[in-house]
Amino acid sequence: MSTATEKVLRRRLIQRPAEPGVRQTLYDVIFEADSTLGRGFDIALLVAIIASIVLVSLETVPEYGLQRDPKSETPVSTLATWFWVLEWFLTILFTIEYALRLYCVRHPLKYAFSFWGIVDLLSILPSYLALFVEYSAKSFVILRSVRLLRVFRVLKLWRMMSQADELADAVWKSREKIIVFLAVVLVAVTISGTLMYQIETVLMGSSHESDFTSIPQSMYWAIVTMTTVGYGDVVPHTTIGKIISAALILLGYSLIIVPTGFVSAELSSKLVTTTERHLCSQCGLSNHRAGAVHCDRCGHRLDDVIPAVSSPDGSQGS
Amino acid sequence: MSTATEKVLRRRLIQRPAEPGVRQTLYDVIFEADSTLGRGFDIALLVAIIASIVLVSLETVPEYGLQRDPKSETPVSTLATWFWVLEWFLTILFTIEYALRLYCVRHPLKYAFSFWGIVDLLSILPSYLALFVEYSAKSFVILRSVRLLRVFRVLKLWRMMSQADELADAVWKSREKIIVFLAVVLVAVTISGTLMYQIETVLMGSSHESDFTSIPQSMYWAIVTMTTVGYGDVVPHTTIGKIISAALILLGYSLIIVPTGFVSAELSSKLVTTTERHLCSQCGLSNHRAGAVHCDRCGHRLDDVIPAVSSPDGSQGS
Amino acid sequence: MSTATEKVLRRRLIQRPAEPGVRQTLYDVIFEADSTLGRGFDIALLVAIIASIVLVSLETVPEYGLQRDPKSETPVSTLATWFWVLEWFLTILFTIEYALRLYCVRHPLKYAFSFWGIVDLLSILPSYLALFVEYSAKSFVILRSVRLLRVFRVLKLWRMMSQADELADAVWKSREKIIVFLAVVLVAVTISGTLMYQIETVLMGSSHESDFTSIPQSMYWAIVTMTTVGYGDVVPHTTIGKIISAALILLGYSLIIVPTGFVSAELSSKLVTTTERHLCSQCGLSNHRAGAVHCDRCGHRLDDVIPAVSSPDGSQGS
Amino acid sequence: MSTATEKVLRRRLIQRPAEPGVRQTLYDVIFEADSTLGRGFDIALLVAIIASIVLVSLETVPEYGLQRDPKSETPVSTLATWFWVLEWFLTILFTIEYALRLYCVRHPLKYAFSFWGIVDLLSILPSYLALFVEYSAKSFVILRSVRLLRVFRVLKLWRMMSQADELADAVWKSREKIIVFLAVVLVAVTISGTLMYQIETVLMGSSHESDFTSIPQSMYWAIVTMTTVGYGDVVPHTTIGKIISAALILLGYSLIIVPTGFVSAELSSKLVTTTERHLCSQCGLSNHRAGAVHCDRCGHRLDDVIPAVSSPDGSQGS
Repeated sequence: MSTATEKVLRRRLIQRPAEPGVRQTLYDVIFEADSTLGRGFDIALLVAIIASIVLVSLETVPEYGLQRDPKSETPVSTLATWFWVLEWFLTILFTIEYALRLYCVRHPLKYAFSFWGIVDLLSILPSYLALFVEYSAKSFVILRSVRLLRVFRVLKLWRMMSQADELADAVWKSREKIIVFLAVVLVAVTISGTLMYQIETVLMGSSHESDFTSIPQSMYWAIVTMTTVGYGDVVPHTTIGKIISAALILLGYSLIIVPTGFVSAELSSKLVTTTERHLCSQCGLSNHRAGAVHCDRCGHRLDDVIPAVSSPDGSQGS
Repeated sequence: MSTATEKVLRRRLIQRPAEPGVRQTLYDVIFEADSTLGRGFDIALLVAIIASIVLVSLETVPEYGLQRDPKSETPVSTLATWFWVLEWFLTILFTIEYALRLYCVRHPLKYAFSFWGIVDLLSILPSYLALFVEYSAKSFVILRSVRLLRVFRVLKLWRMMSQADELADAVWKSREKIIVFLAVVLVAVTISGTLMYQIETVLMGSSHESDFTSIPQSMYWAIVTMTTVGYGDVVPHTTIGKIISAALILLGYSLIIVPTGFVSAELSSKLVTTTERHLCSQCGLSNHRAGAVHCDRCGHRLDDVIPAVSSPDGSQGS
Repeated sequence: MSTATEKVLRRRLIQRPAEPGVRQTLYDVIFEADSTLGRGFDIALLVAIIASIVLVSLETVPEYGLQRDPKSETPVSTLATWFWVLEWFLTILFTIEYALRLYCVRHPLKYAFSFWGIVDLLSILPSYLALFVEYSAKSFVILRSVRLLRVFRVLKLWRMMSQADELADAVWKSREKIIVFLAVVLVAVTISGTLMYQIETVLMGSSHESDFTSIPQSMYWAIVTMTTVGYGDVVPHTTIGKIISAALILLGYSLIIVPTGFVSAELSSKLVTTTERHLCSQCGLSNHRAGAVHCDRCGHRLDDVIPAVSSPDGSQGS
Repeated sequence: MSTATEKVLRRRLIQRPAEPGVRQTLYDVIFEADSTLGRGFDIALLVAIIASIVLVSLETVPEYGLQRDPKSETPVSTLATWFWVLEWFLTILFTIEYALRLYCVRHPLKYAFSFWGIVDLLSILPSYLALFVEYSAKSFVILRSVRLLRVFRVLKLWRMMSQADELADAVWKSREKIIVFLAVVLVAVTISGTLMYQIETVLMGSSHESDFTSIPQSMYWAIVTMTTVGYGDVVPHTTIGKIISAALILLGYSLIIVPTGFVSAELSSKLVTTTERHLCSQCGLSNHRAGAVHCDRCGHRLDDVIPAVSSPDGSQGS
């Protein structure tokens, strides 16, 4: 919360043009979401980004036949023309936006080499580069896919929401537990993968065909199974394999619910602590409800309602 | 909650006929669930709705041969006749119910254009319209399916349960977090979908057939995988694809447990606060902490600590 | 907890033979788990039940060829003989146990018609009845399967665990929420099933084969999908079907995490309340930690530690 | 926790060489993670273990052709040579490490027969034994797989993390509930497996082929379904089977969320209590409720309310 506000303030101090004028106004519209215009710009951008992602991904559907070379003699379909027009319209829009961003920040180079700056550049560059690359070549297809990095810009709406930091914070705080958890998963996956490979392939002999062709394949099965994804492309075929598999599923299930519980508990405790913490200056009772005016033990007036963020235990994040 | 009670009271003030009589009695039976008759009516309606849904869906099973034209020469099976009889019996029942509803509310037009009014109309209209539409035509099948909107009426039993609002409330409160979560999912799905498409189709060449035929198809795979549904109709076939897929599964799993934790935490904190509530006899503030001696709003001594079970909103169950 | 203890005491008062002697000693061994012998009996019984379940289920595996008629001329395999011997050994054991149970309770008929009495009878009766039924007949196979109801007796170890009631209680308390949840699931399943049936089968025409052959089949798909089971036997084949399917998966996922959160929250609040509740007789502060000796507000000695169960709010179940 | 710290201290007292010197320095580097060198050693070991696991598992991929006999005439591929070199490099590294460990502990035999000592030995022994075993024999492949037990050594990084004990503790505390849960799952799996076998195979006759060939197969299906893994290799084919299957899925889902809730609740309550702990200066009792004024064991006034962050067990993270 307030750390997020501080971050916003710090960024504004660094990047917002100091003197009032066109650049400052533009900065407020493009980079901030406080004004009506700024919020409108954000929503328009969001729509443009999602439209652009839909376009770029639909381009690869073979049935629409959009990956042909427009320079060739084969008549281009109307659909392809529309896609081409829309794609260039959006590309030019994003180019203008990128130029404006560079224009209105105080330190354009700093922005250009920041994470968002690079994402913005990668969103438009491939469209221009593609003009010089041979059509239907592999590198062409890959190049055009780079435009899909645009999707990262959806995350810019992050700042619209006050709760996002809380979520990121809860995940970040659970990082050590997640590492321990990944170590346990690594061990479980390796051991169960090896076991199933031995049983299904080595022990059972070549009388029946096995899906567990190698240990990496078995590990892939173990991960797919323990996370309850269960594609079904690799399944045990022997009775012993099925029994061990069932046991591993139950074990894996018990194992994988633990991090869920941890994140849930972290969020739970966060919610409890942030909504219930005030200190009475007379009797020292803390942990009052949000909005409490009198101490509920001694009845003393809680004049100095200390907001949760200033509590000294550092539970308010990073 | 009290807001729910208020809503019920407001609706009653608006729609319940003012003068006592047949209409008011009918209104109490059909719209309210307080009396024995009203509760009985609700249960009878529930049974009728569920029976009707079973009927309409079984009609589409090809083995039962119920989609034939009864006007044709082919002898109709006894089963089809039974279905026809039951369906018309229920349709007429729902028609009478709809007519009575219109009759006993104070402002029939207001009801007719409300959500429930439209659902009620759509539940019976297709049966009558179907008489004029050619059998076995596409539009006929679609038309008859509209009757399945009846299922929404099951939600009318919502008011029977005091806990439903709590559930809806918890989901509603988590809405901002859910939007953030969906944005993160959108980014993860786009990036991982594009990556898998590149690896499985473009990089690996045409030596083996790939399930990742296009980016939308890959995104479909990413959603099916990250939510641990895992149909198995689209699976990676290359070793690199499997390794990246396994990594994405673990990442996706970590990602998707977060909203579970949020809703869980929201409900948890709610439950903790609702089970620890005390009423101040002076200012009427409820919801004090367990063990509170003074009201935290007015400082009045809470002599009469009213246990949670006697709170008037009925959140203590059965 | 203490309600469970009360139940045990009540049962003992009713069913335990009043006068000391062989019957009372036998009763304590067979029905109670307090003594070393009683506990040993419980564990032995548990092993016998699990062994018997394994036997009965392995009998149906076609490869072992155990379903043949032993009276026929075909030489019975050694494995089949072993199965036969073990099965009869266990059946006779269970028969003796059943007889002893009937012998040592005060009211044998009351026991015979109780849930456990019927389960005990159904565990042994089919073995004897099977002697008079023709082998390899359908009814024979079904009859022998009835013996698997023995598995219910595993639940007898329930009383070994103090935590079982807590679990059952948490589930029971969430029953209203679970009904609401099932109503919401019913609506979601019907609407999404109908929608997918329309799109995949009716709208798309007969140009491609669809897995959504009827509305019940589509509903089956919706349940399999929303619970993230995802067999993959019914999957969308059209692009529009896949997009709608992906949207439904995300919606369904959001929907299905709610009851998880509810049960989790219920258990959470329970744990918090049961571990922290004691009343100070001087200042009236409740909610002390388990094991607290002095009131943590006024320092008064907590002579009268009132167990959690006697708190008036009825949160201790049933 | 402090028990973990005690364990470390006890181990150090027993196994750390008493007199200063080379052995003590080596012990601190190899067994402890306090010093920079010790931490560096741990990380290097971690990298080596993971590299070795990747190597051993890739060896079994048929496409790489690494399972051939290098003594045969067939020219070994460059890749195979590289694998061979790396594998022996790592084996020798692990051998040196094992020798050093035996050298620097006070009681080498005690270490050699401890869990970690056996894992260390099993990590290197198969490589040496494999020299004397015929290539491409079954026993050879199994022998080499034993090396994958190395993965257990990843768990040595456990001590790097203060949170691991908390996780293990939460799982351990839930053990009774997990046993109850497994008993309930066993009953549900047996009953639903038998039911589906009866319906799909026995009742439906031989007119269609069934995936439910035996009761164990049906139980395998029940476990795969109830844990929401859903491979799709065993699916119901009859309409009645699908209806019962859908009901079982919903029931199983309700059932399986319970342990998730339990672990989550256990962790939640743990987190709440660990963040709200105060130390009594008289008797040393920690872990008082937030807002406690008197120690609840000795009644001494808690003048010095020590905030949670300064608690000595390091549970406050990084």
